[in-house]
Amino acid sequence: MPIPHIPATANAALRAELQRAIDNKTKPPGSLGLLEALALQMGLIQETVAVAVRQPAILVFAADHGVVEEGISAYPQSVTWQMVENFLAGGAAINVLARQSGCALQVIDAGVNHDFGARATLLDRKVGPGTANFAKQAAMSADECARAIEHGRSIALALEGNVVGFGEMGIGNTTAAAALMHKMTGVPVAECVGAGTGLSREGILHKQKVIEAAVAKHAGVTDPLEVLATFGGFEIAMIAGAMLGAAESRKVLLIDGFIVTSALLVAAKVQPAILDYCVFSHCSDEHGHRRMLAHLEARPLLNLGLRLGEGTGCALALPLLGAACAFLREMATFESAQVSDKTD
Amino acid sequence: MPIPHIPATANAALRAELQRAIDNKTKPPGSLGLLEALALQMGLIQETVAVAVRQPAILVFAADHGVVEEGISAYPQSVTWQMVENFLAGGAAINVLARQSGCALQVIDAGVNHDFGARATLLDRKVGPGTANFAKQAAMSADECARAIEHGRSIALALEGNVVGFGEMGIGNTTAAAALMHKMTGVPVAECVGAGTGLSREGILHKQKVIEAAVAKHAGVTDPLEVLATFGGFEIAMIAGAMLGAAESRKVLLIDGFIVTSALLVAAKVQPAILDYCVFSHCSDEHGHRRMLAHLEARPLLNLGLRLGEGTGCALALPLLGAACAFLREMATFESAQVSDKTD
Repeated sequence: MPIPHIPATANAALRAELQRAIDNKTKPPGSLGLLEALALQMGLIQETVAVAVRQPAILVFAADHGVVEEGISAYPQSVTWQMVENFLAGGAAINVLARQSGCALQVIDAGVNHDFGARATLLDRKVGPGTANFAKQAAMSADECARAIEHGRSIALALEGNVVGFGEMGIGNTTAAAALMHKMTGVPVAECVGAGTGLSREGILHKQKVIEAAVAKHAGVTDPLEVLATFGGFEIAMIAGAMLGAAESRKVLLIDGFIVTSALLVAAKVQPAILDYCVFSHCSDEHGHRRMLAHLEARPLLNLGLRLGEGTGCALALPLLGAACAFLREMATFESAQVSDKTD
Repeated sequence: MPIPHIPATANAALRAELQRAIDNKTKPPGSLGLLEALALQMGLIQETVAVAVRQPAILVFAADHGVVEEGISAYPQSVTWQMVENFLAGGAAINVLARQSGCALQVIDAGVNHDFGARATLLDRKVGPGTANFAKQAAMSADECARAIEHGRSIALALEGNVVGFGEMGIGNTTAAAALMHKMTGVPVAECVGAGTGLSREGILHKQKVIEAAVAKHAGVTDPLEVLATFGGFEIAMIAGAMLGAAESRKVLLIDGFIVTSALLVAAKVQPAILDYCVFSHCSDEHGHRRMLAHLEARPLLNLGLRLGEGTGCALALPLLGAACAFLREMATFESAQVSDKTD
């Protein structure tokens, strides 16, 4: 599968111009903290000092996971399609929070085990009716994985806006994400697994054992895309593809929680330049997420104890991107406002 | 001075109703993290499950500080009035960020050492042309302090909205705030002082020595309002009064950074019930703020490395309050969306 080219954001002249513009604003240097770093990053991505959030969208990819057969989730598989219906009806957390942030929402069926029929607001990119159980065999074939990635890439390339958030729904997908995390980072499985939607301590231990056994079974798998096919989900593969397509078209990538970041681990392994395009919306309460972020040397914007997925962290962080752009575009300079600079 | 009565927010029946409403939303219990705690708190303050942010406003109080004579700031005193002009012209960070959050902004001259003349958009509540130098004498008289508090209270009581953020501008006011912090919490002065707008290591040490000498000089002062009069600023006293008035009228108080929190330390000492009304917008990078928040057992919403003041943290956190209200008002329940609940 051809890996999309991702343009470099490094541009020393523009970086210096952005830093000068940030420092000339009427505030002590650095006093807007992460907002300043964000404005600089967005300027480099958008190749301008006139940074802006235009037509932001959150893509929510849904799919089912064969590994639920192993009893690794607190909720039954049917909740995946029921929650997709909830998204389509506008009643889920991500609907409410995206509306609140003035953000468009697109739900994609990447491989839910349910026939939705033709639905105006659901993008049908179903690769299959859920993955196979990776405790027994690879979750998907190399071909299915490549198709999922290509679908994701196309969806991202077609977006008109310049900021895209990634969300997901899929009962069982923290198990897939934990396996991917282990394979991509080398962190022991025990430190990759968490409570997901609400497992007990025993449930988490069982989940750990299922993953450890599967990792042992598929021990020879090391190539990132083969790891993705073996342990991933259709939504995770499609997210990885959408991330590559979004960076390819110089969009800002808003990264959500544990599952979305697991997709990024794969995308960044095949195309490390993607990380320059990523804004990490939050640190989730799902156990492994903090470690994932540390692995990526990422500093998340929010730390609200979220563990819901759906892209909710993206929706909540989006106003901060708007704020970063606004201060850089709209604030007065020391000169324009005739404010005295530091005495020293 | 009469201390306003602050109504209790404790209401076991409403708390249970709110918690039930939160838990019935289509999400794993607790998965919206701090947003759930925020929705609960706002419900108790507003005495309803139909929580909402209505006509939010940020009040920015400006004043000058006699202690600047001691050379404790990186900027000259004239920056206070110049920044007030910047606020009135709409070019400061708080203007941009308040606009971005759909929040009204009111600037108050609490005691700037400058004659602004009559200005349509500046609220003139000048108690005096800056405080006296607390290294030599009390910053203000008991009468001036009481007037500042009463002005603040009246301003807050007159607000129509149900959420109010507090901001400030005053060259030298991190020195006043550090002294207040030390007196109110008992934390050693060395751990209360920080770089303010950008002091060098030597500058911080000098600031510490100025405060330590002043604390020794005024050693007998222990009553909270006397501490406020001795070490505070007109803007800090007026903020404390506005906080009391806001809680008295059951508004949500959005707390900004180091200086605003120092005002709250005083307000909470005279009226501890005020803390039930406080939402802590962020943890500032100003050295003592984390310790102040710990003293108040506060968990801030944001941690963005801000150290600008003006109420900028309030403006940035405001969308999270809107989000907390929106999820509680608008999300579907498991029943209404026909989504299966947990299997166990």
